[in-house]
Amino acid sequence: MTETTKTTTTKKDLIDRIAEETNQKRTVVKMTVQSFLDNVIKELGDGRRLEFRDFGVFEIRERAARVAQNPRTLERVPVPAKKTVKFKIGRLMREALDTVELES
Amino acid sequence: MTETTKTTTTKKDLIDRIAEETNQKRTVVKMTVQSFLDNVIKELGDGRRLEFRDFGVFEIRERAARVAQNPRTLERVPVPAKKTVKFKIGRLMREALDTVELES
Repeated sequence: MTETTKTTTTKKDLIDRIAEETNQKRTVVKMTVQSFLDNVIKELGDGRRLEFRDFGVFEIRERAARVAQNPRTLERVPVPAKKTVKFKIGRLMREALDTVELES
Repeated sequence: MTETTKTTTTKKDLIDRIAEETNQKRTVVKMTVQSFLDNVIKELGDGRRLEFRDFGVFEIRERAARVAQNPRTLERVPVPAKKTVKFKIGRLMREALDTVELES
């Protein structure tokens, strides 16, 4: 899998768009979006998964601790357990991706 | 990597929480959050990546089309290109994960 997308949209870009679309003040939208993002982090930090219907699912994945070997020195190296977040795309995002044309 | 999280938080749960934290009506928060999620999908569907500082990055990954072989019948099978969304966790989410204790 190679990364293929180029242009970046930021939080500020989205806040401007949402403020326009929903006819709210930027400051209010900013507060709501920030609370949303902070609460997603909080839920994951509390060990819960998040499911947003049609959008996708955030869930923690964990790789167990293991012992690796340095192929050059043959030294055995302990690798600690590692947690990360897996995002599984939902139905609407799947449909949007199926139609996107990417620059190559 | 194995999935380890159990309890699920939904969009409704988060909307209730945000409404309380930001002292807004649920209907307004719901409109803002839905606009946020819809616009994330739209940006990805338009081939852009999204970067939310400290939270993480959404970007499209693409696996090229290839020819696979059925190991039993040795039949050669075309596998079309496939797009998906990769979520890379940001700094605050990393910090939250590093402290989470998961049920086993």
